[in-house]
Amino acid sequence: MKRVLTGITTTGIPHLGNYIGAIKPSIAESNDDGIKSYFFLADYHALIKSHDPQLIRESSFKIAATWLALGLSDRSSFYRQSDIPEIFELTWILTCFTAKGLMNRAHAYKAAADLNIEDGNDVDKAITMGLYSYPILMSADILMFKANEVPVGKDQVQHVEMTRDIALRFNHNYGNIFTIPEAVTNHSQETIIGLDGRKMSKSYNNIIPIFLEEKPLRKLINKIKTNSLEPGVPKEYKDCTLFALYTYFATSEEIESIKKMYAEGIGWGDMKSILFEKIFNFFDPYRSTYMEYLRDEAFLEKRLRLGGEQAREEASAYLKEIKSAIGIK
Amino acid sequence: MKRVLTGITTTGIPHLGNYIGAIKPSIAESNDDGIKSYFFLADYHALIKSHDPQLIRESSFKIAATWLALGLSDRSSFYRQSDIPEIFELTWILTCFTAKGLMNRAHAYKAAADLNIEDGNDVDKAITMGLYSYPILMSADILMFKANEVPVGKDQVQHVEMTRDIALRFNHNYGNIFTIPEAVTNHSQETIIGLDGRKMSKSYNNIIPIFLEEKPLRKLINKIKTNSLEPGVPKEYKDCTLFALYTYFATSEEIESIKKMYAEGIGWGDMKSILFEKIFNFFDPYRSTYMEYLRDEAFLEKRLRLGGEQAREEASAYLKEIKSAIGIK
Repeated sequence: MKRVLTGITTTGIPHLGNYIGAIKPSIAESNDDGIKSYFFLADYHALIKSHDPQLIRESSFKIAATWLALGLSDRSSFYRQSDIPEIFELTWILTCFTAKGLMNRAHAYKAAADLNIEDGNDVDKAITMGLYSYPILMSADILMFKANEVPVGKDQVQHVEMTRDIALRFNHNYGNIFTIPEAVTNHSQETIIGLDGRKMSKSYNNIIPIFLEEKPLRKLINKIKTNSLEPGVPKEYKDCTLFALYTYFATSEEIESIKKMYAEGIGWGDMKSILFEKIFNFFDPYRSTYMEYLRDEAFLEKRLRLGGEQAREEASAYLKEIKSAIGIK
Repeated sequence: MKRVLTGITTTGIPHLGNYIGAIKPSIAESNDDGIKSYFFLADYHALIKSHDPQLIRESSFKIAATWLALGLSDRSSFYRQSDIPEIFELTWILTCFTAKGLMNRAHAYKAAADLNIEDGNDVDKAITMGLYSYPILMSADILMFKANEVPVGKDQVQHVEMTRDIALRFNHNYGNIFTIPEAVTNHSQETIIGLDGRKMSKSYNNIIPIFLEEKPLRKLINKIKTNSLEPGVPKEYKDCTLFALYTYFATSEEIESIKKMYAEGIGWGDMKSILFEKIFNFFDPYRSTYMEYLRDEAFLEKRLRLGGEQAREEASAYLKEIKSAIGIK
């Protein structure tokens, strides 16, 4: 059976971009009988970016509550990375089979290093080994569960290629131990627009959280910039952030009807109300479950722990095989 | 109580240099009531240097049999690094607090990189991330067991300094979590001479294994190069490899008496016999125990596993503390 693996870094609150790009297709996949799917909270990737314990803890619970409330199937493996110590042992094993030259070419490191050079600083100024070597941790995440497919954004394709490279190097030495994964980018081909018209991303501070309450959601949407055309004046829907956000949640009939309203000169205030209703109502059926989960940390903890135990069974049997190949026990 | 930690890389057979420089003082320490000592087989450090599973496996058993036969006390913690998964999780945590610039300065990496530059190659040619980042694994080895002192050779002092640096950086963020270790070099101040007069080291291929059998030991010693002075001609004991090796195992009275024999023109053949007897007899009382252990892999496995379980109890409780500080559970 095809094995698909997805990780979510626990440094933020799930937003509409995550929903369209990852959560929605992944949850559909989790309910597909032909696929064994793995979803994990990448809390040790979060440690690279954040040294704020409160943020990492809260984000883990919010992400777990979101995925579960939105219908992640029990068929899929759902766990916290930090509950699988085997991943870190495998990380070290892979470290011994990773060329340093490979890490030198990683986009995230290169971007940081180039910035240092531009600014006339030492090339490695303020760069941690976490940033530099996280493609190895990501390889362990993927190889540990023999994933065939890894749905990723375009910026992450390189990491899956690195994983292939490392796994092939290991297999060359010790035989056919690792499954060679492939990156799948179709999930995330669409760029989801944020409040400011750029890609929705926590780093741009332009996100709309999925389960935002009524008032703050209305406030956020009212802040979206538009041009200054008055009500009654025909408007262009192309390149309009309000329209783009609307399309993610609307049927094609609804979209056609909104296009007509643009041509007929809908006022921005009215369009903002329509968009608010659309988003708020879209997630409303799941909201009370989300809130209930979020209030019940013990339930989430138990659910994650159970998922972790199941995942560990696989990981630990497989790690034994890997260790035996390299001569460790 | 003072906590002292020593690791042994499992890529070779214990030799006289190891005995004088590390095993002898460490075993004395393991019997000291004022010290809690930790000895571990660094099999995951071995993986950096060797991709030969047979070598790593055999070396682990030979080293364990040697240490136990020579009288390592049950008071000390004796375990395989690979039996403590907490070490690898801690390695990743520390990775997120290690400046890349720090690793750039590590001697082992710099030596390999300089060689590449000299040869006109890419600076990182054939260098793995294992070689580059093993000071982080070593830091985890040390910090995991709150070691105060780490006896090391002079070439390893830098690694303990790096451990201090990483630990202080972490403590700065999260409070006083890690014990700051110190390097202790007095164990290894003496350079032990090998068969060819250089420092005894497996990389020079000039070692004398501790428990070599009678015939091969005699053969090795007979191969030691001397000058061509005939028996009866007075000889210089300074800079004589035979004499140097003899002194490691002799009393001061015995040494004086040998000096006299050099002045009186002892033949090289006779001196070689004397040296052979000295070394062979020195280890003879432990030989049968060593052979017995080595034949009984199940015993060694059980002993190491037990040591591992005890060490894990400490490691796992401590890791929980560390994880809670960073916001992971």
